Amino acid sequence: MISSKREKLDPESLLELLRTKKKAVDRVIREHLPETHDVPEIDLLYKMMMDYPSRGGKGLRSALCLLTCQALGGKEESAYLTAAAMEILQNWVLIHDDIEDDSEMRRGDPVLHRRYGIPLTINAGDALHVKMWGILLQNEKILGKQITLAVLREFLWMTRETTEGQHLELSWVRNNRWDLQEEDYFLMCEKKTSWYTCTSPMRLGGIIAGAKEEILSPLFSLGRDLGIAFQIRDDILNLLGNEDKYGKETMGDLWEGKRTLLIIRLLNLVPETEERHKILRIMSQPRGQKQNEDMNFILDSMKKLHVFDYGNSRADELAKSAFSVFDKVFENPSNDSANVALRSLLEFMVNRDW
Amino acid sequence: MISSKREKLDPESLLELLRTKKKAVDRVIREHLPETHDVPEIDLLYKMMMDYPSRGGKGLRSALCLLTCQALGGKEESAYLTAAAMEILQNWVLIHDDIEDDSEMRRGDPVLHRRYGIPLTINAGDALHVKMWGILLQNEKILGKQITLAVLREFLWMTRETTEGQHLELSWVRNNRWDLQEEDYFLMCEKKTSWYTCTSPMRLGGIIAGAKEEILSPLFSLGRDLGIAFQIRDDILNLLGNEDKYGKETMGDLWEGKRTLLIIRLLNLVPETEERHKILRIMSQPRGQKQNEDMNFILDSMKKLHVFDYGNSRADELAKSAFSVFDKVFENPSNDSANVALRSLLEFMVNRDW
Repeated sequence: MISSKREKLDPESLLELLRTKKKAVDRVIREHLPETHDVPEIDLLYKMMMDYPSRGGKGLRSALCLLTCQALGGKEESAYLTAAAMEILQNWVLIHDDIEDDSEMRRGDPVLHRRYGIPLTINAGDALHVKMWGILLQNEKILGKQITLAVLREFLWMTRETTEGQHLELSWVRNNRWDLQEEDYFLMCEKKTSWYTCTSPMRLGGIIAGAKEEILSPLFSLGRDLGIAFQIRDDILNLLGNEDKYGKETMGDLWEGKRTLLIIRLLNLVPETEERHKILRIMSQPRGQKQNEDMNFILDSMKKLHVFDYGNSRADELAKSAFSVFDKVFENPSNDSANVALRSLLEFMVNRDW
Repeated sequence: MISSKREKLDPESLLELLRTKKKAVDRVIREHLPETHDVPEIDLLYKMMMDYPSRGGKGLRSALCLLTCQALGGKEESAYLTAAAMEILQNWVLIHDDIEDDSEMRRGDPVLHRRYGIPLTINAGDALHVKMWGILLQNEKILGKQITLAVLREFLWMTRETTEGQHLELSWVRNNRWDLQEEDYFLMCEKKTSWYTCTSPMRLGGIIAGAKEEILSPLFSLGRDLGIAFQIRDDILNLLGNEDKYGKETMGDLWEGKRTLLIIRLLNLVPETEERHKILRIMSQPRGQKQNEDMNFILDSMKKLHVFDYGNSRADELAKSAFSVFDKVFENPSNDSANVALRSLLEFMVNRDW
């Protein structure tokens, strides 16, 4: 756990703050999204687009964007559209990822393509992707042309990295690659998770607040480290978490054959024995051929070899390094209370249990 | 066929012109697309993104954008990036459509997901979609902020309509709907085809040339009618065309269960008999259960009832109405030779045999 003698929001107040921010961002999403159409089929498209955003995610990324903007002296309202687009980004990416990963559950309900089939769902993801750019173009009215274009460029960067990271992860599954090292995992996490979870939400807040390059640049390394720490905790929660609280299928990563730090660590620790072969055999099977007992076998191997402790300590190291950058960049915040909330949110993101 | 006493490019010269334009646009695409990456998996992502654009489409939409820009007094070069983005749009849409429609062939080769699997291919389509917005953001350097943003807004409109149209068509297949009338088909075509094939390519050329609203507005109806005429010819070519020349699977629309004007007309003509039941039974089967002889049975029914003549005459009517708008809008073109080429290209698009 990250310890800090700094002022910090208690969990209750932080959650209350998250709820307030999410409410404001959800209102902007609802203003832009629930179009209706006289043709019932097209009306269904808009219902599909609104489905994941209505399922009640935590809104961490949009809150991060809003709080960074405030901490750097910007107005919260000026970042609402951008924060809403961040949420829309996450949702279209999840719609497509759930197909690509053959997932079953998302935020406590069946994934979208299990409700509507793959063809309509790919297209609904595309339509939501388009809507993301549409919301960003609305920025012109409140931010002017210059910042609107700068925000668009940051989204471009972020979405390129996100698709590269997703490609990397999917390729490993497709090519049944298990000869991976921690550096491979870190690269994949940086691209797949860090950019859209930490780096760009914070940079976008900064861009909107008019922050200078000396503030915006260090956010690359800060975001990368925090994002990887966030993903490692997510990998752990996926295996050990409470399904009701976590909202995804428990052990989904094992069922889907995901390359996590935990499985890479396990394979690096287990010698060339029958156990190792069994683990590789199980993990290489398609989802439909895997058994519950196989999943428990791998989980037990991980526990036996203290893989979860290892993951937690790697996440702690990364978070520590990120917070040392944070404390330099935000040494003289323009808005103290926003700064305390921002730091508390980041700590929550890398220490959360849901 | 559209007859015209106006000056007109002969087919050879038009094809030569298309090749020249395509070469210029392809150069821009290659400048922006074939990124390489040290990580071999990510390198593959960029190869996948470049796959369809390298297969040699006709480049009709980008040529339409360039020629409209020139005819309205703009410089061809100022529309290169936008024309390249038009081609990229078509390619990411096709990558996803081919999965959604369970297609087999595209421009004479297997569709992308039959080479790389569905998960990687959905993601590559997303990455190409992102790249489209990226190319459009480059416009700032040559067109300035104002027009760059106007072009982005037109792309937004176009992509929204395209995804609505695709949703409509896919819904009909999913819900096995055959109670459709020509108006339903026309609405679907307008959204799925007209916008990205005619309306927006022409409007974009106009926006870049600095055309006024009295020029840009009539392009809505002109584009709609031409786009529907284009789609009707495409439906006919799909059933009667030469596979080598056309590049797609012959009778692919029947295998995929597409709702075309031809099948709607056929069902409106065939009374409630055994023949009608057989047609509905065949068309409602999933691709894998259909037989070659079933396809020929439907083709013969269509020929017997002159469905193709009907389709051609509907396309002619729509084209006629579009050209009467064209001749008013482009009465005093700023560039005569570009105007002749533009009109010749539009005639070719609704009269082509490949």
